[in-house]
Amino acid sequence: MEYGAYTIDQAQFLADFKAMSRHGGTSAGGVHREAGSAADAENRHWFAGLLAGLGAQVAYDQIGNQFGFFETHPGAPYVLVGSHLDSQPFGGRFDGAYGVLAGAHACAAVSRGATRHNLAVVNWFNEEGSRFVPAMMGSGVFTGKLPLERAQGIVDRRGTSVADAVSRMNCAGELGAAQPMPEFAAYVEIHIEQGKAMHRDGHTIGLVTSTWAVRKYEIVVHGEQSHTGATLIEDRHDALLGAAMLITKVREVGQQHSTAAQPLITSCGCLDVEPNSQVTVARRATLMLDLRCADEDRLEVADQAFQRAIPEIERVASVRIEQRQSHRWGAQAYAAAGVELAESVARELGLSHVRTRTLAGHDSTNLKDVLPTIMLFIPSIEGITHNERELTSDDDMISGLRMLAGVLQRVAAAELEAQTEGDSDDT
Amino acid sequence: MEYGAYTIDQAQFLADFKAMSRHGGTSAGGVHREAGSAADAENRHWFAGLLAGLGAQVAYDQIGNQFGFFETHPGAPYVLVGSHLDSQPFGGRFDGAYGVLAGAHACAAVSRGATRHNLAVVNWFNEEGSRFVPAMMGSGVFTGKLPLERAQGIVDRRGTSVADAVSRMNCAGELGAAQPMPEFAAYVEIHIEQGKAMHRDGHTIGLVTSTWAVRKYEIVVHGEQSHTGATLIEDRHDALLGAAMLITKVREVGQQHSTAAQPLITSCGCLDVEPNSQVTVARRATLMLDLRCADEDRLEVADQAFQRAIPEIERVASVRIEQRQSHRWGAQAYAAAGVELAESVARELGLSHVRTRTLAGHDSTNLKDVLPTIMLFIPSIEGITHNERELTSDDDMISGLRMLAGVLQRVAAAELEAQTEGDSDDT
Repeated sequence: MEYGAYTIDQAQFLADFKAMSRHGGTSAGGVHREAGSAADAENRHWFAGLLAGLGAQVAYDQIGNQFGFFETHPGAPYVLVGSHLDSQPFGGRFDGAYGVLAGAHACAAVSRGATRHNLAVVNWFNEEGSRFVPAMMGSGVFTGKLPLERAQGIVDRRGTSVADAVSRMNCAGELGAAQPMPEFAAYVEIHIEQGKAMHRDGHTIGLVTSTWAVRKYEIVVHGEQSHTGATLIEDRHDALLGAAMLITKVREVGQQHSTAAQPLITSCGCLDVEPNSQVTVARRATLMLDLRCADEDRLEVADQAFQRAIPEIERVASVRIEQRQSHRWGAQAYAAAGVELAESVARELGLSHVRTRTLAGHDSTNLKDVLPTIMLFIPSIEGITHNERELTSDDDMISGLRMLAGVLQRVAAAELEAQTEGDSDDT
Repeated sequence: MEYGAYTIDQAQFLADFKAMSRHGGTSAGGVHREAGSAADAENRHWFAGLLAGLGAQVAYDQIGNQFGFFETHPGAPYVLVGSHLDSQPFGGRFDGAYGVLAGAHACAAVSRGATRHNLAVVNWFNEEGSRFVPAMMGSGVFTGKLPLERAQGIVDRRGTSVADAVSRMNCAGELGAAQPMPEFAAYVEIHIEQGKAMHRDGHTIGLVTSTWAVRKYEIVVHGEQSHTGATLIEDRHDALLGAAMLITKVREVGQQHSTAAQPLITSCGCLDVEPNSQVTVARRATLMLDLRCADEDRLEVADQAFQRAIPEIERVASVRIEQRQSHRWGAQAYAAAGVELAESVARELGLSHVRTRTLAGHDSTNLKDVLPTIMLFIPSIEGITHNERELTSDDDMISGLRMLAGVLQRVAAAELEAQTEGDSDDT
């Protein structure tokens, strides 16, 4: 089919992005907008208003995913585009938020032209997972990977449940329950790279071909509370020492199994200590750590080395270590047909582009397992992210928006299905 | 002089101890009664009533130290006995609280007999230091080691100041300010051992001859917030990794410099991580750690080894480590005359006794620098302490109370001064 012409109001997009960044905005130019916070609620209600102004119908599902439906062909399936509006504590204003706003503007523009599918934008609930663990929660529930009831029952450090936080925002809807969920044909997401390669190498658009492989663990170190002053070392069961040894060990293992060509990255960003008193040996420490590598076999070997080190840590700190693997995914490919479709759009628009892999998890990591999915990146200056200094230029944001609209137009023309069928015919 | 007879109501003491343990009492038999908490306030008001019933005048100084004055010789100096009623989070019911209650009962009994000095009991504010750092705060202010205004301005994790917490308990008084502080002649404290040696060896009374030497540090590790998934290892400034390396290193140093005869003990019981999110490299970690040894030279060598390791930790974790020495005391002797006086009382009462050193800090660690001070221990079963399972037998508590009364009687007869003067004559 012929593609209709469409217009993107670039100035309006940039103005909207600026307005959005004020919700939970910090003095250092970031946003502090954790899932279910007052700032998240404020931003969601503002976004609902923006969607209505663009002509979309706004609806929520039970976990609080926020949809804007641009229905032009009643009964036809939807092409879904989205990301997340929640942020890390004192995080950046681009991570997730850029993709949702670009999605809304691209949907509005493209759905004014000729399409075969309808278009919809989604703001997934709690992608960040800083307040409510696990991350990618809304897309996890949507794709059936995380049971709704389990997600609703998860509590933050103060004991507030996801169900309560979503309903306090007035964002608990009936989509997928009392109200039927429409059919979706494909998913598209655009996000900042959060690495520095594209910015360094001067590429404007990243075409994501696959994820890295990831193992995430939730770990509880069980010790026993005692006096730091009066208890001899041999009588201690020091949960914080056990946790510290795990954190240093996982880094050590990562470095041993890393090469320049195939880096292996390990992390621990959170640790809770009980009772957390200067003169008391900790009775319990809770932490989450992960290992990531583009190569699945290398990751497996490193993970085994880490697991083998645990009994020695239990012996030295005289603690019991309990662990649960909370996430595990392989180095999974995004559909080749999608990468090719996106590549031809980038070429057509004259945008510098590069095939890349995503080190971070995204909602598309979940979606690609249930829908044909295209994942796009725009550059992050110096790769700074989860940080108030996170930055992407206006030019790159506009290029990404043009790219996203171009991809959406082709996918809404059912071209991805056609290409995928074509792929199958070739085999 | 001849000592008057006095009677101790042992059953009433045990009943009072049981009643007191209900304030902040936990289901596992401990107490959760941090300084300035509602449970601390409740217990202080109950204790004020008990003191009034025993015939004492209750008064508070500006930092919230609670005094009970048993005045029998107007204008004469006071012998002060005391400890602290605050506890660790989910701590034991004996630590501190036993010594204050035993002090009240012993003062009441002894002051009914013949004395030369007056007697007073004190409940020092915030000995534990779990909520408000540093520990031994009330006795630190009383002895002039910690300026009142600085202590009053210290805030807990929620931002509540010491001044506010004390005044909310209605425990901020004018003693030492608008109301003159009386003169004190000596200080006596009895406490549970918090180690297991006395219980293991069958000793009922410990005569504390000196402290261990101690170095305590407050440390801030400065990193930079970034994405755990997307940031390469070489681009990270990981504050939590730096903290974990410090915690494992101080333990390692402790073990390298420890011998069976002269153990060197290192600890870290608290660590706060910011932003403490599973997918974000920590920008800041705050911890307190300490090194203790009975031998000051050995401690100095170990401390230097720890300090020398810090630049390498800064390099590996790519962080900046800022530290402040918050406490430092040497292996300090308690006055020999006091130990001898107490020894003769133990002998007279037929109580099994042993000379020992204190590994933990106590309010008497501060007091001994300004007053002739006697420090006594009773056993802790298995040495379990800062734990809800902390336990001392009723028999040992009663023996300790008899011992304390015996010591107070002699000290209130001005025998400690006489003996100290005798000591000087000998040299």
